[in-house]
Amino acid sequence: MTYDNANIFAKILRGEIPCHKVYEDQDTIAFMDIMPQAPGHMLVVPKAASRNLLDADPATLGKLMAVVQKVAVAAKAAFAADGVRISQFNEAPAGQTVFHLHVHVIPMHEGQRLGHHGGKQEDGAVLAANAEKMKATLAKV
Amino acid sequence: MTYDNANIFAKILRGEIPCHKVYEDQDTIAFMDIMPQAPGHMLVVPKAASRNLLDADPATLGKLMAVVQKVAVAAKAAFAADGVRISQFNEAPAGQTVFHLHVHVIPMHEGQRLGHHGGKQEDGAVLAANAEKMKATLAKV
Repeated sequence: MTYDNANIFAKILRGEIPCHKVYEDQDTIAFMDIMPQAPGHMLVVPKAASRNLLDADPATLGKLMAVVQKVAVAAKAAFAADGVRISQFNEAPAGQTVFHLHVHVIPMHEGQRLGHHGGKQEDGAVLAANAEKMKATLAKV
Repeated sequence: MTYDNANIFAKILRGEIPCHKVYEDQDTIAFMDIMPQAPGHMLVVPKAASRNLLDADPATLGKLMAVVQKVAVAAKAAFAADGVRISQFNEAPAGQTVFHLHVHVIPMHEGQRLGHHGGKQEDGAVLAANAEKMKATLAKV
């Protein structure tokens, strides 16, 4: 299993394609999933190249999870969520579709069921509005 | 949201109830989920008390994820899996049922669908055999 730097998240990290970014630091970026399983679904992505969790540098993981936590706490507030679901898939049979390590952060509401991932691309204006909501919340915490 | 030390994982950590343990170090323990969504489903649990990711110490998270990675890599080998799914739920509307931070590590096979969590308690002998398989693999990596 190798890392292919033509994957879509590598392109986002290189600025070759745009994203609805909510957070960025030296090691990590977070942006809106364009095919959200629930409103406010985000991805947290390390800048360091690894295919997934299985081949990641443990130091990268530590920094990544600190941002996942920050994003999860802010997501709960920004989207008035009742809970937050975190998932991370390794290899296609586990649900991985982009082969650069990433963690899903999904705000959940009471009684809500998750949509099918990859089901439908969200409207850009909705994603932009959700990103703004998150950025405003992150600026406060 | 507070931490209640009568939760089942706190009891496991205190040795008050048994588990099919696969790994333990100073900060973290891993054991078989007794209601697996797939064969080999494990839980990785920090010894430090927190309700979930939202109130965890970031230093705890870093150590936890290093073990999640170790367990995921070993699980792929031990159960001849094609992939590994990682999930972590925060609050009941997100699927959390035990209120001590834990991470699910689920070996996945091509074409496999996940069972419903909490659906059915697995036979103790099966869990014990899976734990032995994992321990043998972890001893080699």
